[in-house]
Amino acid sequence: MENIIFTSHAAKELSRLLERYAPQDRFALTDPNTFRECWPLLAGAGIAGERVFVTEEGETGKSIEQVVRIWEFLTERGARRNAVLVNIGGGVVTDVGGFAASCYKRGIRCINVPTTLLAQVDASVGGKTGVNFRGLKNEIGTFALPEKVVIDTVFLKTLPFRQLLSGYAEMLKHALLSGRECLDTLLKMELHKATPRQLAPLVRESVQIKAVVVENDPEEHGVRRALNFGHTVGHALESAALAAGKVWYHGDAVAYGLLAELFLSVRKWGFDPLLLEEFARKITGIYPPYEPAATPEALYALMLHDKKNEQEGVNFTLLRAPGEFVIDNYCNREEILPALEYITHL
Amino acid sequence: MENIIFTSHAAKELSRLLERYAPQDRFALTDPNTFRECWPLLAGAGIAGERVFVTEEGETGKSIEQVVRIWEFLTERGARRNAVLVNIGGGVVTDVGGFAASCYKRGIRCINVPTTLLAQVDASVGGKTGVNFRGLKNEIGTFALPEKVVIDTVFLKTLPFRQLLSGYAEMLKHALLSGRECLDTLLKMELHKATPRQLAPLVRESVQIKAVVVENDPEEHGVRRALNFGHTVGHALESAALAAGKVWYHGDAVAYGLLAELFLSVRKWGFDPLLLEEFARKITGIYPPYEPAATPEALYALMLHDKKNEQEGVNFTLLRAPGEFVIDNYCNREEILPALEYITHL
Repeated sequence: MENIIFTSHAAKELSRLLERYAPQDRFALTDPNTFRECWPLLAGAGIAGERVFVTEEGETGKSIEQVVRIWEFLTERGARRNAVLVNIGGGVVTDVGGFAASCYKRGIRCINVPTTLLAQVDASVGGKTGVNFRGLKNEIGTFALPEKVVIDTVFLKTLPFRQLLSGYAEMLKHALLSGRECLDTLLKMELHKATPRQLAPLVRESVQIKAVVVENDPEEHGVRRALNFGHTVGHALESAALAAGKVWYHGDAVAYGLLAELFLSVRKWGFDPLLLEEFARKITGIYPPYEPAATPEALYALMLHDKKNEQEGVNFTLLRAPGEFVIDNYCNREEILPALEYITHL
Repeated sequence: MENIIFTSHAAKELSRLLERYAPQDRFALTDPNTFRECWPLLAGAGIAGERVFVTEEGETGKSIEQVVRIWEFLTERGARRNAVLVNIGGGVVTDVGGFAASCYKRGIRCINVPTTLLAQVDASVGGKTGVNFRGLKNEIGTFALPEKVVIDTVFLKTLPFRQLLSGYAEMLKHALLSGRECLDTLLKMELHKATPRQLAPLVRESVQIKAVVVENDPEEHGVRRALNFGHTVGHALESAALAAGKVWYHGDAVAYGLLAELFLSVRKWGFDPLLLEEFARKITGIYPPYEPAATPEALYALMLHDKKNEQEGVNFTLLRAPGEFVIDNYCNREEILPALEYITHL
């Protein structure tokens, strides 16, 4: 956690962190939307405009071609091994920038300034970097911790509600892994009314849950797989959408992924079915309805290819109850298809 | 050193190492020449032909485009996170394969089977991976240790003398860093008459020198820079050749790089000029004459861009005497140009 800074003065913090870097060593990466909405708040932090690279918008920006363009940008400007790349934006920017930095001259440092709720509670913390490749999510990437992560909920003020929902799904996941109390707070909150100031302590709690897990298992050989809860199905939903040319918000995919995997948890570990019901009401109440981009059979095939699967069957993290998770449950087709049917007929 | 296996039965060793991997998880990477000369010796090691990727020949194979093709190959064959990539070949193969493996699904394991003298004493050991990018050597890469390195000098039997020379330059460098005794053995040996069996103990000693340095500083923040001896100039010679479309053997570049940096060592640290003379006779006696691909001024500009330079001037490792190195010597233009003139007029 010592590399994560919670602040309500992001520009001042960033400026302080950049003091140790020569001006010509300071580079930034952002996307067009963040450049418009958030960059003005950081313009005084000490990064010259000509060393700011603006990526393409959205998931299409999460490609190896984009990474190559970032490397070209750095090479053309003579970026040295002790340069720093400041990634300002959502998860796409921190994932792509983190990956680009980790391979440029075999690794330059980076600082993440996540500006979406999703990136604040998830993507910018934990050191996973990567890009999509040939229709597969995060197929190419590295484990590379950012030097610092600067979290300021003021950036969430301009965030569309759709994007708050994306982060909220990861917060729900963290709460499910943490315990009943944390979960109840989140289920009761009214996300559309929350101010940045109200979100700050919830973001901090969510980040802490993740950070503790990651510190115990940075390269995901064991307990970190708990963080995959909801994501085995979630990633399949996203990959299917990607392949079908549809746009899916990561959070929507995770929200329905959580439901499918809670369904499996009820069946395999006796998770409370009434709590699943309450959870399902919350999800269907605030998220758009689930529109399948592929059949349950096709989704199952995608999961088999997912990187977390190292034996026969598909590897899930499941829950006995909030706060009680079990990693490495290998489920077969007969167990998985009903869970996918369940979310189809909510 | 515990991950380096010296053997005269490479196929048997490799087969033993692969036992823990399911057959569908075993992949290999090699180049056309190695596939012809060395693969037959390893064909019984348990890797199916359809999971062997043959790269393009030479330095053109050391590109990000080649890495993308390797990722496609792995993705198409459903390679999982616990797959292993066996890199069989020279430094290009172990550098490219090591890089591809370190980013595929955020890192799969690899085993290196270096088949050239250069790769055996240098490239395959130490965990540096990478590709050239926009005319710059090893601009993109990672630090990623192979799970194992299998070294068998039998592969050197079919190696052209030109390529033995490449490895010999790195052995000379290691000897210069180690001490007078080790250096004298190498200066006296007749490389063109050496058999694989005679080379084995010399290779082992050379690898040990490197391994000790790397273990003390895997990510090159300090003492590992000693291994850059000869390479600051050497890389500039190579980059200049690359940019001019000429083929330079890495070893030739290093050999003349060693001479230039010994010249600097004489000037700055009182290295014995008679030993420089003896060294120069050996180099000019067995290596092709130095043919500049760029002027000293242009080479100096290339060095300034080199990734090891973090202050004003160019960072060199220099020697007081064999075995006594000094890292982080920043030299300026007026000091460097005479060293480049020196190798031009040998």
